[in-house]
Amino acid sequence: MSQPNVFPVIDQTLLGERADLIAEAARELAAFGWTPATSSNFSMRLDDAHVAITISGRDKGRLIRSDIMLVDLDGQAVGTDARPSAETALHTQVYRRFPEATAVLHTHSRTQSVASRLFAADGVIRLEGWELQKAIAGYTTHESVLEIPVFPNTQHMPDLVAQVDAWLDSGKPLYAYLINGHGIYTWGRDMPETRRHLEALEFLLGCELDLRRLSP
Amino acid sequence: MSQPNVFPVIDQTLLGERADLIAEAARELAAFGWTPATSSNFSMRLDDAHVAITISGRDKGRLIRSDIMLVDLDGQAVGTDARPSAETALHTQVYRRFPEATAVLHTHSRTQSVASRLFAADGVIRLEGWELQKAIAGYTTHESVLEIPVFPNTQHMPDLVAQVDAWLDSGKPLYAYLINGHGIYTWGRDMPETRRHLEALEFLLGCELDLRRLSP
Amino acid sequence: MSQPNVFPVIDQTLLGERADLIAEAARELAAFGWTPATSSNFSMRLDDAHVAITISGRDKGRLIRSDIMLVDLDGQAVGTDARPSAETALHTQVYRRFPEATAVLHTHSRTQSVASRLFAADGVIRLEGWELQKAIAGYTTHESVLEIPVFPNTQHMPDLVAQVDAWLDSGKPLYAYLINGHGIYTWGRDMPETRRHLEALEFLLGCELDLRRLSP
Amino acid sequence: MSQPNVFPVIDQTLLGERADLIAEAARELAAFGWTPATSSNFSMRLDDAHVAITISGRDKGRLIRSDIMLVDLDGQAVGTDARPSAETALHTQVYRRFPEATAVLHTHSRTQSVASRLFAADGVIRLEGWELQKAIAGYTTHESVLEIPVFPNTQHMPDLVAQVDAWLDSGKPLYAYLINGHGIYTWGRDMPETRRHLEALEFLLGCELDLRRLSP
Repeated sequence: MSQPNVFPVIDQTLLGERADLIAEAARELAAFGWTPATSSNFSMRLDDAHVAITISGRDKGRLIRSDIMLVDLDGQAVGTDARPSAETALHTQVYRRFPEATAVLHTHSRTQSVASRLFAADGVIRLEGWELQKAIAGYTTHESVLEIPVFPNTQHMPDLVAQVDAWLDSGKPLYAYLINGHGIYTWGRDMPETRRHLEALEFLLGCELDLRRLSP
Repeated sequence: MSQPNVFPVIDQTLLGERADLIAEAARELAAFGWTPATSSNFSMRLDDAHVAITISGRDKGRLIRSDIMLVDLDGQAVGTDARPSAETALHTQVYRRFPEATAVLHTHSRTQSVASRLFAADGVIRLEGWELQKAIAGYTTHESVLEIPVFPNTQHMPDLVAQVDAWLDSGKPLYAYLINGHGIYTWGRDMPETRRHLEALEFLLGCELDLRRLSP
Repeated sequence: MSQPNVFPVIDQTLLGERADLIAEAARELAAFGWTPATSSNFSMRLDDAHVAITISGRDKGRLIRSDIMLVDLDGQAVGTDARPSAETALHTQVYRRFPEATAVLHTHSRTQSVASRLFAADGVIRLEGWELQKAIAGYTTHESVLEIPVFPNTQHMPDLVAQVDAWLDSGKPLYAYLINGHGIYTWGRDMPETRRHLEALEFLLGCELDLRRLSP
Repeated sequence: MSQPNVFPVIDQTLLGERADLIAEAARELAAFGWTPATSSNFSMRLDDAHVAITISGRDKGRLIRSDIMLVDLDGQAVGTDARPSAETALHTQVYRRFPEATAVLHTHSRTQSVASRLFAADGVIRLEGWELQKAIAGYTTHESVLEIPVFPNTQHMPDLVAQVDAWLDSGKPLYAYLINGHGIYTWGRDMPETRRHLEALEFLLGCELDLRRLSP
């Protein structure tokens, strides 16, 4: 970000603000232990064509503004030689498919990883009867059902993108998804809403695992 | 709180002090992870007719004095356009039914939520044989039994209020209650006693869940 | 401690130093969550006849020097109107029976409470095969067996004191003990050794509970 | 380190830098609770013949530069009367067998200790299907298998060294190993890679224990 002239069409003030929001979220989520071993990645939409996203492999507990890079909606680096995360394609897909989304958080907590393995065979986790479902935008009662799909893991990103597209194209609602043995993706209209979604989902997955341990 | 003239009958110094006590408790309970995703709410009695209570939807880990509003004992906002939490009715009920109570804490920990689901069918959790029962005002021995009711959840507050009233009208002691899939309510004569009750109940519920996991 | 003249035979500098060590340990153990709801108490020997001990009911996370009082080896308050904890008798017993002990820590973690309930019927927890047994003074190998008795709880302190005396009079080694549904007592030649004993025992009890959960 | 003249061939600046890296890692790992009761030890290679390593028995949460000493690749103290840890032989073995390794971390978390006991009979833990396996240098897909051997514990270090040598001499890859009832050893090309390996292994062992609890 020391060369503002290479981003001719980018609002540098907005880029700086969003990079700071990403770095702050990263540090706080790392402190929860949800980003082990430099895993996880985070992004915010900048405008119709650009996204600010974490550079691959950085320690999320020490993230600063210069650990964030710019990509276009095809996931190509813009104005930098830095390498975007392989999973950038999953972020840009959210921004293409959800016009209101401005933030995407992908974390990797132990609860998320374990839940993804346990429910992988079902392909979905159904949450029901929890007051905290109301933390998901659009949910107003614990009596509703919140479905979180669990997609098979693959190192071939286009396959993952296709699985998410297929779910959306079927017309089912989607607020978040898990990848088997991996972690969660969720998003929202702004960073606070996205953080609220992530915290609520981590909490609900943890409750479901506890119930399963306790109800043989 | 920048317009003191709109609260003509309110002791502004007392309101400020109690708002600070609420905000401090909220930040500390949030740090324990007991207020996920902007859930939970907290209040303190101000005088015979007024209660200071957290405004709905604020991040409890960052609560400040201006996130607290005033309501009357019917749960109506006083001197503000802010929207009180839907659950305000459960707070004001405590102040009406327990003349000595000056603080109410409602949190939403994973232990509380899971315990509420496990014991919902019984309608009550019976705690017995734990030294820490003595942390509840009026208990002097681990040989006593401490009953915590678990009420069915509903988005219709008058039904919840009626359930609590029915328990109290039956003459049974009440120090705290759980709502199924939701969280806990407890109270006390001042904030330290209420904090002590909440910490003791969280601890005891956690111990009961552990024993259940370990004693098949 | 604002009236030094009421302790004519006490080394005030030493009392201040030991009160500071107790308060520091209390704050750190409270931060681990081992002193819920104002439970737990801590002491250090001052001389042949006096012990500095925490005053009953204080929040251990906020302990300061003035929360510590002086008692004699019979547990009677010295030079103060403050009320010593009911459990003071268990501290002074340690100082009478172990001439080298200068610190006693009694905490109340969830692991300690749950382990005490699970092993109460056996009356003892046998630890074996853990490298960390070597953290207990006198143990040099994981191949030894470390026995921690679990005594029945009672609100009548002389009965607890008698149970500990009976164990010691039988000639069995004693490094720590649990009280059922309650917590642990351990001690050492100085505060660092006592802290090391307490941390090792909390760790080993937690490992035993985990193994039991995992080895059906 | 107050007598620089006794280390005639040692780069004092490098020694100071590496001692600081070790102390920083120790404090952070202690804050995670992975070094209970003064257990665990940490080292960094200095040159072809020397290693900086933690002095035995120090509190890892408070480690400073003077808690680190120098040994040669036979584990003998260099330029100091301090006693190196009994486990120094396992550190120097890593530096002899892995020319690229510059850091070794040995910790002692509850998860590591419990996993070592559970898998001791198998002699190995096989990790498979976890995205975080990619945090181990050389792994590029969750479809690989990562084997962590579990060696029997002994207080006789040459036996432990021989077990590790036998594994390596058999030609099997080795990124880390557990000792039964004890803890983990891992290493890497620099401190950040070694930290990443340790965090990933702690996470993966925790996930495996959770899965085992949840999949009866």
